[in-house]
Amino acid sequence: MTNDVRGSYVIDVGNYLKQLQDSICAAFEAADPGHHFREDLFSTEMHFARPRVLSDGAVFEKAVVNFSQASARQLPPAALQLRPQLADRSFDFTSLSVIAHPANPFVPAAHANLRFFEAPSERSSPEWWFGGGLDLSPCYGFEEDAIHWHRNAYSACKAFGSSLYSQFKRQCDDYFFLPHRGEPRGIGGLFFDNLQLDDVHRTFALIRSIGNAFLPGYLPIVLRRKDHPFGPRERAFQLYRRGRYVEFNLLCDRGTLFGLQSGRRVESVLAALPPVVAWTYQWHPDSGSEEERLCQVFLKAKDWLATTSDEVSVIGHNTNSIS
Amino acid sequence: MTNDVRGSYVIDVGNYLKQLQDSICAAFEAADPGHHFREDLFSTEMHFARPRVLSDGAVFEKAVVNFSQASARQLPPAALQLRPQLADRSFDFTSLSVIAHPANPFVPAAHANLRFFEAPSERSSPEWWFGGGLDLSPCYGFEEDAIHWHRNAYSACKAFGSSLYSQFKRQCDDYFFLPHRGEPRGIGGLFFDNLQLDDVHRTFALIRSIGNAFLPGYLPIVLRRKDHPFGPRERAFQLYRRGRYVEFNLLCDRGTLFGLQSGRRVESVLAALPPVVAWTYQWHPDSGSEEERLCQVFLKAKDWLATTSDEVSVIGHNTNSIS
Repeated sequence: MTNDVRGSYVIDVGNYLKQLQDSICAAFEAADPGHHFREDLFSTEMHFARPRVLSDGAVFEKAVVNFSQASARQLPPAALQLRPQLADRSFDFTSLSVIAHPANPFVPAAHANLRFFEAPSERSSPEWWFGGGLDLSPCYGFEEDAIHWHRNAYSACKAFGSSLYSQFKRQCDDYFFLPHRGEPRGIGGLFFDNLQLDDVHRTFALIRSIGNAFLPGYLPIVLRRKDHPFGPRERAFQLYRRGRYVEFNLLCDRGTLFGLQSGRRVESVLAALPPVVAWTYQWHPDSGSEEERLCQVFLKAKDWLATTSDEVSVIGHNTNSIS
Repeated sequence: MTNDVRGSYVIDVGNYLKQLQDSICAAFEAADPGHHFREDLFSTEMHFARPRVLSDGAVFEKAVVNFSQASARQLPPAALQLRPQLADRSFDFTSLSVIAHPANPFVPAAHANLRFFEAPSERSSPEWWFGGGLDLSPCYGFEEDAIHWHRNAYSACKAFGSSLYSQFKRQCDDYFFLPHRGEPRGIGGLFFDNLQLDDVHRTFALIRSIGNAFLPGYLPIVLRRKDHPFGPRERAFQLYRRGRYVEFNLLCDRGTLFGLQSGRRVESVLAALPPVVAWTYQWHPDSGSEEERLCQVFLKAKDWLATTSDEVSVIGHNTNSIS
C-alpha cells in the first residue's frame, strides 16, 4: 500500500477492483459457455470507466460488471446529503458494481457494489470512506441458498469484528426496502456506507474480504439452480418480481441518484435495470403457492445464520408502508 | 355550480371527472371489442377511489382510467414544495388520470390528467387551483397524427385565451423531459399546474374543454393505426421506448411522488407503468431507420401547429443533459 497522499488509495483500491472485475467476468463466462462480456472503455482526464455487459446469455439474461474511477471538483448532492461538511471539497472515487439478472427464474438476481471515496485536503489528512455490500433477490426461495449466502457473508466479515456481519446485515435489510410496497427487495446480505475501521489498511482488507466472497457466495447457487425446469408461469413471476427491482433502483436507490447527478454515463448507471420487466395491476399469488411463499418466508428480515431448512424464524422488521 | 363553501367545488369537479371517466372507458371499450375495464371501489371517510383497468386487450395492452377524491389534513411534500404557504392547511382533492399503453407499436401511448385542489380557510376565501394536461408518446412517428393532436389541443384552449395553448404546450415540453437522457418523453400536448383564470367557474370551463378534447384528440389516431402491420422488430422497439416512460414516471414525475407520499394505493399510483418493458444496454437505432426518425424528428420540441406533413421545422429546446 502506498502512502497517504492525494489519490494514492484510490489507485490501490482501483487496481484491486479491476482485478475483481476480471475474476467475476471470467467466472460468469465459465458458468455461461459461449457467451461473453462486451467491454467498453471511456477515458478522460477526470474519469475512467470500463463497463462490461453480457447480454442474452443462456444463464445470464443480463450481467453487468462496471468498473469506474473518477475525480471531481465537488461531491454530488446525493453524497453531500450525508456529509454536508464536504461541500466545496474535491474528491476521488472508484467503484465496482455487479448486477446479474439470470435467465432461469430459480436463480436469484445478485447485486454487489464496492466503492471508495477520498476527499483530499491541504490542511489536514484526507477524509476517506468505503461503501458497498452485496445482496440477493430470489423469485423462488430456497432455504439452503439463503443460508449459504448469509453464512458466506458472515465468514467474510468475522475476522474484522464480531458484530460487523449483523450490523451490515441489518443495514442491508433497512436499505434494500421499498417503503411504498412495505417489502424488502430480496433476502439481503451486507450493506455499509461511510465505513472506516481503525485505519484505511484494515478497512481495505475487509473490503477485499467482502469482494472476494461474492463469487463463493453466488456461483454455487447459480450452478445449482440454472437448469431447474420452468415454464411460462415462472417466467411471468420473474418479470413481475423484476418490477420491484426497477422500482427500488429508480425510486429508492441513492446509488442511482448519485450516478445520474454526478454526470456518469446514463447507459452505465441504468445498466443495472433488468432486460425485460412486467407490471401486472393488482396481481396476487395463489394461496399456498411457491410465489406466495417467497413473500411470506423469504421477503422478511430474518436471522439466516440461525435458520435451518426445517425451521424458519421470522424476526421483527420495519414494515411501515406509506400506502 | 354550487356556492363557494368548503368542498363545494370539489364535489362539482369530481362529478364532472366521474362522467368523463365513464365516457373515456366506454369509448376505449368500443374501440377494443370484447375487452372490458375492471372497476375497483375504495371508500373511506376521507377517500373515495374508483380505478378502472383494462388489461390484455387487442387494442389496449393496458389502459387505466383512475378517478380519485380525497380530503387530508395537510398537503404532501411534493405539493408543498411549490406552495410552502399552505403548510398545515387541510385540503380537498379530486383527480382523473388516463393512461393508455396500446398493443400495436404504431399507436402512441397517451396520458391525460385533470386535478383540482382546494385548501379551505376559516379566515379568508379558499385557495384553489387546477392542474393537469394531456400528452402523447409515439414509438413510430406520423406527422399527421402529431398535427391532429396539437390542433385539437389548441382548439380546446383557444376560447379561453389566445396564448393558453402555447403556454401549456411549452410547459408540457419542459415537464415531460428526461434530463438524464436529454430527451422529451413524447410529442407533448398540454401541461399546467397552479392554474387559476379570472374565477373558478371560467377555469373549470377550460378544464372541461380540455377534458372533453381527450377522446377527439386520441381516438382517431388509435383507430387509424391499430391494425398497422408489425413484427418482432417493432414490438422490441415499443418495449424499449416504454423504458423511457418508466424512467420518467419513477425518476422525474412529481405526480407519482405526490401519489406515493400522500399514501394513495400503490397499485393505483403505479398502474400507469407499462405492462411489459425492456432495457437494452447501449441500443442505437440503425441509420436512416424509422426508429432513428422518431428521435430526430418527433422527440424535439416543435411548433406542430405550423407544421405540415411535408415540412418539419425544429425549434430550439432545453437539451441540457446531465450525462
